[in-house]
Amino acid sequence: MTKKNGYRVCAVQMSMGPSGEDNHARAMNLVRRAAAADAQVICLPELYRWPYLCQREDISLFDLAEPADGPSVTDFRSLAAELGVAVIVPFFERRGPGLYHNTAAVIDTDGALLGLYRKMHIPDDPAYFEKYYFAPGDLGFRTFDTAFGRVAVLICWDQWYPEGARLAALSGATSLFYPTAIGWHPAEKEQYGALQRDAWTTVQRGHAVANGLYVAAPNRVGLERPYDDLAGIEFWGGSFIAGPQGELLAQAASDREESLVTEVDPAHLEEVRRNWPFFRDRRVDAYGGLTRRWLDGTAE
Amino acid sequence: MTKKNGYRVCAVQMSMGPSGEDNHARAMNLVRRAAAADAQVICLPELYRWPYLCQREDISLFDLAEPADGPSVTDFRSLAAELGVAVIVPFFERRGPGLYHNTAAVIDTDGALLGLYRKMHIPDDPAYFEKYYFAPGDLGFRTFDTAFGRVAVLICWDQWYPEGARLAALSGATSLFYPTAIGWHPAEKEQYGALQRDAWTTVQRGHAVANGLYVAAPNRVGLERPYDDLAGIEFWGGSFIAGPQGELLAQAASDREESLVTEVDPAHLEEVRRNWPFFRDRRVDAYGGLTRRWLDGTAE
Repeated sequence: MTKKNGYRVCAVQMSMGPSGEDNHARAMNLVRRAAAADAQVICLPELYRWPYLCQREDISLFDLAEPADGPSVTDFRSLAAELGVAVIVPFFERRGPGLYHNTAAVIDTDGALLGLYRKMHIPDDPAYFEKYYFAPGDLGFRTFDTAFGRVAVLICWDQWYPEGARLAALSGATSLFYPTAIGWHPAEKEQYGALQRDAWTTVQRGHAVANGLYVAAPNRVGLERPYDDLAGIEFWGGSFIAGPQGELLAQAASDREESLVTEVDPAHLEEVRRNWPFFRDRRVDAYGGLTRRWLDGTAE
Repeated sequence: MTKKNGYRVCAVQMSMGPSGEDNHARAMNLVRRAAAADAQVICLPELYRWPYLCQREDISLFDLAEPADGPSVTDFRSLAAELGVAVIVPFFERRGPGLYHNTAAVIDTDGALLGLYRKMHIPDDPAYFEKYYFAPGDLGFRTFDTAFGRVAVLICWDQWYPEGARLAALSGATSLFYPTAIGWHPAEKEQYGALQRDAWTTVQRGHAVANGLYVAAPNRVGLERPYDDLAGIEFWGGSFIAGPQGELLAQAASDREESLVTEVDPAHLEEVRRNWPFFRDRRVDAYGGLTRRWLDGTAE
C-alpha cells in the first residue's frame, strides 16, 4: 500500500472505561481494524490502558504500572508481528521501585521493540497531577526507524513545546505522533472549551508548518469521572493528522471513537521543504538562550 | 487609554506605490490616524517605504538604503514625539559601504530611538532575493521597553521560526510584532493561495500559544509588479493580531488597506500563563541540539 516509500499513519481516538483489561482488549481490536484499513504506523492515546490516572494523587495507582516487558507492550509486540504493522503503545512504566515514567513503546512490524520515549515535559495542574506520578523522561527527543519511515513520538504536554518538535525534525523524523489525554474541566467547557481546543490544535499545526512534517495527535474522548467527589475530565477528542503545511488532513469528532488514517507522502514533504527551506536559514549561532529558563540575568 | 497597564497595539496594513516619498507620507498619515484611534504601539509593514525591492537582484536599488539617522526614522521620531505613541519603523538600512540590513527601528513616545532589530533569518527564493540585499542581523532577538510595555520585533521570514519567538518571550516581551511582506506568486495563487496564507497565520498563532503572548503581523496588501517581465507579487494582506491563546482578535482583509487596533491586556496574559505554565516545564537540559543545524552526526 505504500506509494514511493510513503506510509499510512493512524491516530486511534478511544474512550476508556474502568477496566484495564477491557481497555486493552478494545485497543488491540482497534489496532487490528486499523491494520485492516491499511494503516501502517498506528498510535494509541496516552496511557490507553486506564482511565486517566492523574486526577488525584493516589498512591495505590502505582500498582498499575508495568515494565517495558510487561503485558501491554508484550501483547502489542505479538500483534504488530502478526499484522505486519508498527504500533506506538503508551504505557505507565515502572522502571524501578519508586521510579515511574509516562512512556510510549515503539514497536516495529516484526514485533521488535525499537525503543521507548519517556515523556520529557511533565505537567502538573489540578486534575492532571502528573508530577506526582512520573519522573521526567531522560531519553531525550528521539526518532525511531520503523519499517515504513522514521517517526518521532512525543506525549501530550510535549505538544505545547516547539523545542521537542524541532529536535525530532532535526533528527530526521517525517512524522510526529502525540498520544494525548486532554480535555475540559466540565465547569470550564462552556466558557473556554472551544478556545482551549483550538489552541491545542493550532500549536501542533504550527509545529507541522515550522518543521515541514506530518503531525498525528490521537486523543481520548468522553467524560472520565472515576471519583464521585471530583467533576472529572471530559476528554475532547478532536484527534487529527496535519500535513507539512499545517493543513488538516483528517480530524475526529469530539463525542465518539474514531480512527484516522492518512498517507505520509515523502515526495510532498520534499516539495514543501524545498519551497519553504526553513532549515537552511536557522540562526544556530544565536539560539544559545534556548537552553536557559528565562533571560532575566539571574542565572547563567 | 491604558487599563491596568495594558496598551493598545496597531498593525498597519498598507499598499505600496512606486514613489518612496508618497509611501512615506501615506505611512505617516496612517500612523497619525492610528494614534487618533488610541493606538499606542504602532507597527508598519516590512520595508514600508518602497515597493518590495527584492523581486530581482538589481544593484541600483542599494541607492535606496539609508542609515538609522536617515529621513525615514527621523521623520517618525518626530511624529512619535508629537503624537505620544511608540512606532516600529522597518527600513532598508545602510550600515556601511556594501553592508545593508533589513531593519526595524523602535521609537518611543518621546521620539527616542530605543534600538534596532536587524532581521535575523534572511530568505532567498525566486522573487524574494533577500540574501543578495541583506546581511543577516547581528543584534540577536531583542526586546524594547516602550513607555507602554516590553515589545519584541521580528521581521517576516522570522515568523516561521519558533526559536525567535521563544527567545523574545524568554526576554520578557508581552507582544511580538512581525512587520511582513508576504504574498502569492500570481501563478500559484489559485492552487496554493489559501493553504499558504493559512500556514502563515497558523504558525504565528502557534507562537502566541506556545509563549502565551500577543502577536501582531502587519503585512502589505495588493499586487506589486515593478518589472514588466516579471509576474510580480500579490501581497495577501490578512494582517492580524492574536492573543495569548492564539485567538484571532483582529484580522484584515486581503484586498485593501486597514489598520487593526487591539488591547494587550497583561492581566489576561498573566492568567493564561498561570493556567498554561509552559515556561515552568521547559527541558532546558535537553535542548542543546537546537543550536545545531541538523542532528545527523556530520558536525559537532
